Amino acid sequence: MKKTIKIGIVGYGNLGKGVELAATQCDDIELVAVFSRRELTETQSGVPAVSLDKIAEYQGKIDVMLLCGGSATDLEVQGPLVAQYFNTIDSFDTHAKIPTYFACMDETAKKANTVSIISVGWDPGLFSLNRLLATSVLPNGQDYTFWGKGVSQGHSDAIRRIAGVKNAKQYTIPKEEVVNAIRSGECPAIKGNEVHLRDCYVVAEDDADLTAIEAAIKTMPNYFVGYETIVHFISETEFNEKHTGIPHGGFVFRNGQTSPGTNHVIEFALKLDSNPEFTSSVLVAYARAAYRLKQHGGSGASTVFDIPFAWLSPKSGEELRKELL
Amino acid sequence: MKKTIKIGIVGYGNLGKGVELAATQCDDIELVAVFSRRELTETQSGVPAVSLDKIAEYQGKIDVMLLCGGSATDLEVQGPLVAQYFNTIDSFDTHAKIPTYFACMDETAKKANTVSIISVGWDPGLFSLNRLLATSVLPNGQDYTFWGKGVSQGHSDAIRRIAGVKNAKQYTIPKEEVVNAIRSGECPAIKGNEVHLRDCYVVAEDDADLTAIEAAIKTMPNYFVGYETIVHFISETEFNEKHTGIPHGGFVFRNGQTSPGTNHVIEFALKLDSNPEFTSSVLVAYARAAYRLKQHGGSGASTVFDIPFAWLSPKSGEELRKELL
Repeated sequence: MKKTIKIGIVGYGNLGKGVELAATQCDDIELVAVFSRRELTETQSGVPAVSLDKIAEYQGKIDVMLLCGGSATDLEVQGPLVAQYFNTIDSFDTHAKIPTYFACMDETAKKANTVSIISVGWDPGLFSLNRLLATSVLPNGQDYTFWGKGVSQGHSDAIRRIAGVKNAKQYTIPKEEVVNAIRSGECPAIKGNEVHLRDCYVVAEDDADLTAIEAAIKTMPNYFVGYETIVHFISETEFNEKHTGIPHGGFVFRNGQTSPGTNHVIEFALKLDSNPEFTSSVLVAYARAAYRLKQHGGSGASTVFDIPFAWLSPKSGEELRKELL
Repeated sequence: MKKTIKIGIVGYGNLGKGVELAATQCDDIELVAVFSRRELTETQSGVPAVSLDKIAEYQGKIDVMLLCGGSATDLEVQGPLVAQYFNTIDSFDTHAKIPTYFACMDETAKKANTVSIISVGWDPGLFSLNRLLATSVLPNGQDYTFWGKGVSQGHSDAIRRIAGVKNAKQYTIPKEEVVNAIRSGECPAIKGNEVHLRDCYVVAEDDADLTAIEAAIKTMPNYFVGYETIVHFISETEFNEKHTGIPHGGFVFRNGQTSPGTNHVIEFALKLDSNPEFTSSVLVAYARAAYRLKQHGGSGASTVFDIPFAWLSPKSGEELRKELL
C-alpha cells in the first residue's frame, strides 16, 4: 500500500511516542516529523525532531498534525496555533471547556480552510460514540459509564505529594458486583464514588509514619473522601516490578426498554495494557478520517460524532462491505 | 419536539410491529402508514394499513420507508421497488449477496434521487460497526464474533420438521470459557462450531420415539453435525411458559497489540430480550440518518459504515458535544 497520508506529531511525551509507534502499524501513513518546544536530539523512529517554532515551514509537506500536548493548557494554545496551517487531531478532554475549545478551533480552521477533529481518544472518544449510539437506539433507558481498572495519574500524583511517600500509584476499580448487576439488566441509581474503589500502592520512606500516610490519603478531600479506599504499603522493588505500567479501560452500558418488560443491554468495554498507546492508536485512525474529510471538502472543527467509520479504515467501501459488514 | 420525520413501514411481521413500537418512543418521528401485500384490517397503533400496490400514492407524504420484509427474497424485490419513490432503510442480511444488492439499490436510488441505507440492524449493523472501528484502531490483532444466547429461527424450524416433534426452540449459546479467555486477552484459533453450543427444547408428540428424535437432531447435516448439541424434552406447558420469547445477543471482540507484550481488548456486547424489537429500534434510528443524509444532498445506497453517529440522534451537534462527548 502506498503511504498516502503524511502526518506530524506535536508534543513528544507518552502520547506522542504512542502515535509514533501506531503509525508504524499503518501501511498508508507516513510520519514525517516530530515537533516539540523542547530541544529534542532524536526520536525513537529516527524521523526528524523539529522545533515547534518551525512548524509553518512544513505546510504542504504534512497532511495532518496530531496534537499530543500533555495537558489541556498545551492544547488550548497549540490547537489554534497549528490549525492555522494544518488539519489537526487532538485529544482535548477537559469536558467543561469543550464548547469553547470547539468554537475556537472551528473559527480558526474555517478561516484557514483546514479541518480539526477534537476530543479524540477513548473517553472522550470511543466511549462517547457508544453513549450516542446506544441512546439513539434505545431512547428509553439508562446510561452507565465505569472507568478502570486503571491508573489515575492525578490521584497517584496527589499521594506522592504526602510527606513520607517515596512513590505511589492509584488504580481506579469499578465495583464488580455493580457492573455485573447492570450487565444482567438491572438499572440501579448510582453515584460514581459509590461504584468505584480507589486502590493505592505506596512506597514509603524508611522512617515514615504509615498510619499517618494512610490517614492523609483517606481524608484527602475531592480525591479520596467519599470513596472506598484501600492502601497497600509495598517495597520499592515490588513497585518497580508490578506497578510501572499505565493500564486503563472501562465500560459503557445502556440498559433500555422497547416495551414494558422487554429489556436490552448494550455494553462497550475496553481493557487496555497502555492507556497512552491505545489513545494514540485512536488518534492515528482519526488522522485518516481528517484526511478524507478534507478531501470531501470539509473545513472547520468536528468531533468523533461527525465522522463515518468508513473514513477510519484504509480500505475501500467495497472492501468494507464485503469483509466487515 | 416537532414530529419532523414521517416514516412508513413496509411489511407487518415481527420487525414491522417492532418499528411501529419504536416510533412511539421517538418524539421527532411520525408513523404515517403501514404497507402490506396482505389484506390488513388494522394496526396496533391505529395508523392506516394500506395495500403495497398503492405505495406510490404516498410520495411526498412519507420521508423514509422502513422495509421490514421477512426474508431476503422480500427485500430483493421490495427494495428496488420502494427506492424508486422513497428513501429507504432495510435489514438485508444475506451476507454473500450484499455486494449485488448494494449495487442494485445504489443504481435505483441514484436514478430516483433517493437515499437507501441497507443492511441495518445489529449483525449486520452494530456488530459490523464495531468490527470496523476496532480493526481501524488496532490494525495488528484478531477479531472474534459470538452470537447468543439467542433463538435461531432456522434451527428451530429444522427441528419442528422432524416426525414426532410438536414444537421446538433452539438456542445458540457461546461457550463461556472461550468468551472469558478472549475477554482476558487470549487469542485462540477457533472455529464457530467449536465455540457455540446448540441447546434444543423439544415438545414431542405423546407417542413419539424420543431417542429417534434426539438422534435425528444431532445427526442433521449443516444444522447440528459438528456442534455440541443438547436436547431437552419438555412439556407443552413448560414450553409455553418459558420459551415463547425471541431473545438474542452476542459479542464482538478485537484483541490487538500496539507493541510487543502490550495488549488491548475491545468488546461490544448485546443482551436482547427481543431480537425483532431491538432490530426495529436500530432501523428507526437509521431512518433519522436517512432523512439527514437526504437533507445533506445524498443520493444512492450506503451502509452503517457511511453514516456519522450524530445523524442518529434528534439532538443538535451542540447538545451532543455538551451532553455525550
